[in-house]
Amino acid sequence: MQKLLAALTAASLLATPALAQTAEKLDAAALTKIKEEGLNRSKVMETAFYLTDVCGPRLAGSEGLARANAWTKKRLTDYGLANANVEAWGDFGRGWDIDKSYVAMTAPYYHAMIGVPKAWTPSTAGALRKQVAYVNVKTEADLANYKGQLRDKIVVLPVATPPQPNFEPDARRLSAEDLQKLSEAPAGGGAPTAANRPAEANPEARRAAMLAARELRMKLNDMLMAEGAAAILSPGRGSDGTVFTTNGAPYAADAKPVLPELEMSAEDQLRLIRLVEAGIPVELEMETKTHFQNQDLKGYNVVAEIPGTDKKLKSEVVMLGGHLDSWHAATGATDNAAGVAVMMEAVRILKASGLKPRRTIRIALWGEEEEGLHGSRNYVKNHFADPATMQLKPDHEKLAAYFNLDNGAGKIRGIYAQGNEAVKPIFTAWLAPFADMGASTVTLRNTGSTDHIAFDAVGLPGFQFIQDGLDYFARTHHSNQDTYDRLVADDLKQASVVVASFVYNAAMRDQKLPRKPLPTAAKPQ
Amino acid sequence: MQKLLAALTAASLLATPALAQTAEKLDAAALTKIKEEGLNRSKVMETAFYLTDVCGPRLAGSEGLARANAWTKKRLTDYGLANANVEAWGDFGRGWDIDKSYVAMTAPYYHAMIGVPKAWTPSTAGALRKQVAYVNVKTEADLANYKGQLRDKIVVLPVATPPQPNFEPDARRLSAEDLQKLSEAPAGGGAPTAANRPAEANPEARRAAMLAARELRMKLNDMLMAEGAAAILSPGRGSDGTVFTTNGAPYAADAKPVLPELEMSAEDQLRLIRLVEAGIPVELEMETKTHFQNQDLKGYNVVAEIPGTDKKLKSEVVMLGGHLDSWHAATGATDNAAGVAVMMEAVRILKASGLKPRRTIRIALWGEEEEGLHGSRNYVKNHFADPATMQLKPDHEKLAAYFNLDNGAGKIRGIYAQGNEAVKPIFTAWLAPFADMGASTVTLRNTGSTDHIAFDAVGLPGFQFIQDGLDYFARTHHSNQDTYDRLVADDLKQASVVVASFVYNAAMRDQKLPRKPLPTAAKPQ
Repeated sequence: MQKLLAALTAASLLATPALAQTAEKLDAAALTKIKEEGLNRSKVMETAFYLTDVCGPRLAGSEGLARANAWTKKRLTDYGLANANVEAWGDFGRGWDIDKSYVAMTAPYYHAMIGVPKAWTPSTAGALRKQVAYVNVKTEADLANYKGQLRDKIVVLPVATPPQPNFEPDARRLSAEDLQKLSEAPAGGGAPTAANRPAEANPEARRAAMLAARELRMKLNDMLMAEGAAAILSPGRGSDGTVFTTNGAPYAADAKPVLPELEMSAEDQLRLIRLVEAGIPVELEMETKTHFQNQDLKGYNVVAEIPGTDKKLKSEVVMLGGHLDSWHAATGATDNAAGVAVMMEAVRILKASGLKPRRTIRIALWGEEEEGLHGSRNYVKNHFADPATMQLKPDHEKLAAYFNLDNGAGKIRGIYAQGNEAVKPIFTAWLAPFADMGASTVTLRNTGSTDHIAFDAVGLPGFQFIQDGLDYFARTHHSNQDTYDRLVADDLKQASVVVASFVYNAAMRDQKLPRKPLPTAAKPQ
Repeated sequence: MQKLLAALTAASLLATPALAQTAEKLDAAALTKIKEEGLNRSKVMETAFYLTDVCGPRLAGSEGLARANAWTKKRLTDYGLANANVEAWGDFGRGWDIDKSYVAMTAPYYHAMIGVPKAWTPSTAGALRKQVAYVNVKTEADLANYKGQLRDKIVVLPVATPPQPNFEPDARRLSAEDLQKLSEAPAGGGAPTAANRPAEANPEARRAAMLAARELRMKLNDMLMAEGAAAILSPGRGSDGTVFTTNGAPYAADAKPVLPELEMSAEDQLRLIRLVEAGIPVELEMETKTHFQNQDLKGYNVVAEIPGTDKKLKSEVVMLGGHLDSWHAATGATDNAAGVAVMMEAVRILKASGLKPRRTIRIALWGEEEEGLHGSRNYVKNHFADPATMQLKPDHEKLAAYFNLDNGAGKIRGIYAQGNEAVKPIFTAWLAPFADMGASTVTLRNTGSTDHIAFDAVGLPGFQFIQDGLDYFARTHHSNQDTYDRLVADDLKQASVVVASFVYNAAMRDQKLPRKPLPTAAKPQ
């Protein structure tokens, strides 16, 4: 099997669709229309502009995400889609937004610093002007060292990996060798060695260390709160003004109070630490204003449909989607306005091309992905099956396929078959017309960390595309630099036509896509 | 001649000091002491820490530069140097410091932005909250388009080169091929094709375009002032949170008033522009506080000496130096705390090694380099000769050599002979013991833009070392990211011992270094 597939892949690389077409019927006229519309009259960058610049950061539960929910519903309706809806998936937690963020060193001299409030952290008690204390806790026993010393101080935490001159490019594309390795990779495996993401030697050890660090951090939080510290500055990963961000408190409505906390530019943080360690008094001024929203604790997905036209098949559904929520420090351009813009563009292309899909096509823009794929997992639970019980709902058998896009703004280079050997020749055939646009690789390997996993977990055929990494992991993924400027129009146009074609093929095919065996005794992932 | 020199260079690359020593006497025992002290008991990073983190930004005329003048004088005295002095070189202009800098978008949603006040620009009228106007003036005629529209607006100017994913590494070192090209280059030429600095095809055209742009900008300033705009946001070169900065007004005490002006992160600036161009009202809040110092308009250099020990030669002087001033957005680590720290370390090494130089060694830390080599040019004029008249002062004949370091934080790879063919074999011999540390290239080519030019301009033998670029041009040179974190300790240690050795050799040599013919009818450069 492995060798036959390799031969097919090689054939598609050489763009000999004749061979592929022996297995899969491809509608060349439809493909021409899709490419025409998607490459010559693209709206993908306009969509991306509205999602990023106009809606703003789209943290789960935030005002920006609410704006994006409303705007995407309207825009999909404007495209002519039916049944557009902002659909609650269940209870999420508190909304949170930033109203002000300012932090600067005022002694030994003035220096405005780059920092971002951690998500779900509270306001400072007005505009502060306070001394800095450096707190370096390596074990629980170290906590006692700071007793009685931190009242009214702004606490600065250590930087694990100081920045240094970078001899590697921020951005790269998958090489022919990278793609060859992917196409030969066996099923299974965790996250793939994608562009710019280093392979992990011992993920268990990392997870254990992370849990231990998190536990120590909780104890540190308790100590700082009890000692009466004013605020915390913690180091953000990143350098050069780029700060990667995360949350500083749970989003649960009844979460335990925490101190105001910023994630800081590593260079700014290290300067504070070096000065304090040299015995030089450091004073900061700082003002964070944030507000919580406790009125509506629900989470939402946006859905809309192109109804199918085949009497027998229109009750079956091909889904495509990506998550609409983002982190809060920038406008989530590559994570994941890019994926959403491409998926919205794919359905726009299909509508504008006047194509008549046999099956119904449903786009879903997921909420609350960043906190654990909540939107997609709950959608799947509400509509298809609960992975805990594996009791199937009637719609479970109606889903032909789910396609996801969420690996940055790079063009599509192929697709992860997610261990589904039977789809490999189908996808290989579907990719054949895109070999000259750089997309030709089907890998059996799994990829994780995004919404197709929710489908895969209940035995539904859910897939994520392989994308060029560009500067996703080096620069934008969850950082304050994940802005519209990172989007490459040609890449997003290419992705739009590939996705539109896949979705159309799945909607036209005589059979739904083949499935892997149903998982038994599955647990929620 | 060219071929002979190439052979000598090749010999030194192979580290065969025997050949070199036929021409130049090298004191192997002294060299061992220098390497011992400089590599095993280095203080260069401690010095760099004080210059950057403790003194802070060192803009010409600023409080940070005054702190650095005082600190370096004291530290050089502590090292045992004689005659340490903060020596006025003449009239410079106003001092200027930042007391507060805050800018954020408040509508359509909140976003704290990265921006830096342009040097010598005034405070805003308190904390502003204003609408944004996008002003895109390409010719003088465009100015009229904005009449009556800008009162109380914060004016946003266009971004010439939007950032994009970067497929080139920020940092690099000179390759063997780069060095080979340098060693074969003829005398003359402008700035060399150093690491990360692209060669310039048509510098005249660039200069003409720059002058025209500057003139248009002056007219724009007048219009904005007349129309009553509140402040200007202009685009800084750079991306990812890195902002390259400059001045927004002359430093002259009687400079014409200008508006408050920030240089902004390109990504933040582009978001404002895209929103305004899409017709979406944008509101900012902004507060800049700066203060001027008009009490002391003088500029200064810091000098100190290791007196010579040879009765006949001690009246002759070997000088070494680098500029102490920096731009204001960061702490000027690579430009040029690195050079100053290395020069201070070189004299520390020579003192600590107990070596007895025959000639006097004088370190000079220049002020006001960034505004046109003012410190060094005026020092040369005060002590050696005025290039306008070429009337030589008595000390002109006493200077054996001047060595400068100001091309970032990378290690030394060789030296620019600045068209002085007679020094090439001497420097080749002096570098021979450093071939295994990566420094072996002598190029006849000129390099400019820093303080050795002041010496060269009056026929004195002034030289600048060749350094690895690291991320100097991509990331740190005049940017808000030019911080201590960019310094590579091993590189600075290597540079310290190379410089100490060169200075020692120049102080011990029977003859002063050979000179080029005196320039005639020279004009100020």
